[in-house]
Amino acid sequence: MLKDQTAAATGPGAPAGYFGAKILDLARTLAQWSELPDGLMCTYFSPAHKAVAARLREEMRSAGMDARVDAVGNVVGRYASADATAKALIVGSHYDTVADAGQFDGRLGILTGLVVAEHLHRTGRRLPFHLDIVGFSEEEGVRFSAPYLGSAAIAGRFAEALLQRNDANGVNLATLMQDEGVDLAAIRALARRPETLRGYLEVHIEQGPALLQRDLPVGIVTSIAGSARFRVTVHGTAGHAGTVPMALRHDAAAAAAEITLAVEQRCAVGAALVGTVGQLAVPHGLINVIPGRCELSIDIRSGDDGARDAAIADVRGVIDRIAARRGVRVEIVEIGRHAAVPCAPQLQSAVARAVARAGIEPFRLASGAGHDAVMFAGVTDIGMLFVRSGNGGISHSPLETVTVEDADVAARVLLDVLISLD
Amino acid sequence: MLKDQTAAATGPGAPAGYFGAKILDLARTLAQWSELPDGLMCTYFSPAHKAVAARLREEMRSAGMDARVDAVGNVVGRYASADATAKALIVGSHYDTVADAGQFDGRLGILTGLVVAEHLHRTGRRLPFHLDIVGFSEEEGVRFSAPYLGSAAIAGRFAEALLQRNDANGVNLATLMQDEGVDLAAIRALARRPETLRGYLEVHIEQGPALLQRDLPVGIVTSIAGSARFRVTVHGTAGHAGTVPMALRHDAAAAAAEITLAVEQRCAVGAALVGTVGQLAVPHGLINVIPGRCELSIDIRSGDDGARDAAIADVRGVIDRIAARRGVRVEIVEIGRHAAVPCAPQLQSAVARAVARAGIEPFRLASGAGHDAVMFAGVTDIGMLFVRSGNGGISHSPLETVTVEDADVAARVLLDVLISLD
Repeated sequence: MLKDQTAAATGPGAPAGYFGAKILDLARTLAQWSELPDGLMCTYFSPAHKAVAARLREEMRSAGMDARVDAVGNVVGRYASADATAKALIVGSHYDTVADAGQFDGRLGILTGLVVAEHLHRTGRRLPFHLDIVGFSEEEGVRFSAPYLGSAAIAGRFAEALLQRNDANGVNLATLMQDEGVDLAAIRALARRPETLRGYLEVHIEQGPALLQRDLPVGIVTSIAGSARFRVTVHGTAGHAGTVPMALRHDAAAAAAEITLAVEQRCAVGAALVGTVGQLAVPHGLINVIPGRCELSIDIRSGDDGARDAAIADVRGVIDRIAARRGVRVEIVEIGRHAAVPCAPQLQSAVARAVARAGIEPFRLASGAGHDAVMFAGVTDIGMLFVRSGNGGISHSPLETVTVEDADVAARVLLDVLISLD
Repeated sequence: MLKDQTAAATGPGAPAGYFGAKILDLARTLAQWSELPDGLMCTYFSPAHKAVAARLREEMRSAGMDARVDAVGNVVGRYASADATAKALIVGSHYDTVADAGQFDGRLGILTGLVVAEHLHRTGRRLPFHLDIVGFSEEEGVRFSAPYLGSAAIAGRFAEALLQRNDANGVNLATLMQDEGVDLAAIRALARRPETLRGYLEVHIEQGPALLQRDLPVGIVTSIAGSARFRVTVHGTAGHAGTVPMALRHDAAAAAAEITLAVEQRCAVGAALVGTVGQLAVPHGLINVIPGRCELSIDIRSGDDGARDAAIADVRGVIDRIAARRGVRVEIVEIGRHAAVPCAPQLQSAVARAVARAGIEPFRLASGAGHDAVMFAGVTDIGMLFVRSGNGGISHSPLETVTVEDADVAARVLLDVLISLD
């Protein structure tokens, strides 16, 4: 079933596995450039980063696109429409990585777009819109703690205040860009006007186990979760571990433990919610001292802002009760709150129809992680296709995997969506 | 009542508050020597430590004792019996401190013995045993992670392997001692033979809130708690805080939080038990990453070894169930287990009778902290008197306090015990 249907969609010259094998081969090729001797790391304007950009541009040109590296390092390839005045549909993701990364986070989306554009070019099929395949230069925020540098510039959201940031070695972002020959004034000119855009599509590895659990190669993203983040400090009373009876203690770590479990329990209610205590520490803790202070982080996300805010309110209420009962003081600092970003219903439907035509159950899920697509929300319609992660869904790790078969399905679904859009 | 009775015991020249004022004055005097500019720290063979030893020796001599500093730095003063062949009763505690210490932990016991010996000398009262007031040189184990160096030498338990230890600056203990002119062979000669000892008494600040809660100046120690210590590592599965559904997580920090609360809950059952998670940390934790590893310490103590071992077994059982339920692996390394040390019933009774004669309810309690007395258990009879801690019982802190009144009571009780012993 699957093979016949996708063969019908893709035409000659693309036997089963053709796209997938090409994508994985290209991902391996790009992974040769790294800042680490024994792992993949590719951060903004490192030598590895510039090498990857140059190679991507060459691959785009070989695939029949007009390609260049723009002022912020994005690699932009256009497979032009026959109609020069047509709008553009962007298919993008990022080519920078975290430290000790996998080969697919970000790059899978660029390469899927690339093989699809190459196929359109090879088969001589023109679209009613320009197809812009974009490798964004910076999404992870590793080097300058400033994520989405690349997509923000094209979406017209580039925050020039970020230029003042320094990396861990004290290198200033603005200085670095000038040293790289970037015309800072040109960054503003990268912004696409909304009326020139047909939409934004992004293929991305799921970075989670939901598709793996359901035995599905791809899924349709409904929204990108909103998040709220807090730093929490519990102030208790330090004391000698041998001499203070249990009933007289004000143990900061025990209170933090209760808070950690409260976050977990509250966020287990409702499928659209996740909550994480990623940082937890008794500073300078000693084995024989009752903790007087404990610090933790809370990260709560949901595709539904209301569900998220209700969970936050409940967790705050539980924290108040824990503090009162234990005689500790809890300081909560909100360090970020971002609304959920919905994917456009018509793009969700277009992707879902293509998934169904590929003989796959069109399963919808929210994205818990942020993506370049977020930058384009409100600028143009956004849509996302998730591809199954192997190895239990592990991400930001060299253990991250995508199979040839799943990458192949993703490319065929993307191709079908592009051909089917009017 | 109190005043009359203690006046009867102490005789002329010791009006109410006399001993207490003298003890607090001497504690202040000794606190002038420190390794810290703005707090008290006095570790083994530091200049401050040597200055304190010299001053203690002079104070002992002024109080009529024959005093010297021995091979390991103990300050030993003897108020001799008329009978040169009599046994010796040691009244001791330590003069070294932790970092940013209070003035009383250890030193209170030496100074209480000192003012009592001075009173006996001044009033010409001889005892049927030699009274040896000892300031032990090292109990806290701060500099060489080798506690009880001083008391171990006199108790005949000095472990020569400790001499190979280095401090944080790489200074070797054996080398340091040689540089200080210590004849290492002389250390073994410090060991007292059990048949030469009448007993061992120690006055010590409680370092906890039990006496404060009961509004009692002193208490009779029944035993010094046994302890067991563990390093626990929870191995879970790291993951993206946004993308892994709650039901599919194996969160090491959440498991550690449950373990922390299990220790607290189990040790709250039974008055003779305390349990503490003093160290708790997600190494390199990130706000947006589900913890893959979490490390914690467990310290469980009781005056009753059976109660402690039952608690340990129960906690281990709960940990096994948490690990199985959460799909995490928990590694438990026992890093120490010490049996509880009972105080000799006859010395407990002697102290209790003296407390009662002072008009104070003779309240008995276990010591959760270790003390020099532990070294003498099995060598001679040991007894301990606890003195109320102020400030909620805080210890190992500059906030540690003892009042003049309570120190005075402690001295009068000690004097009464010494006079009453046959």
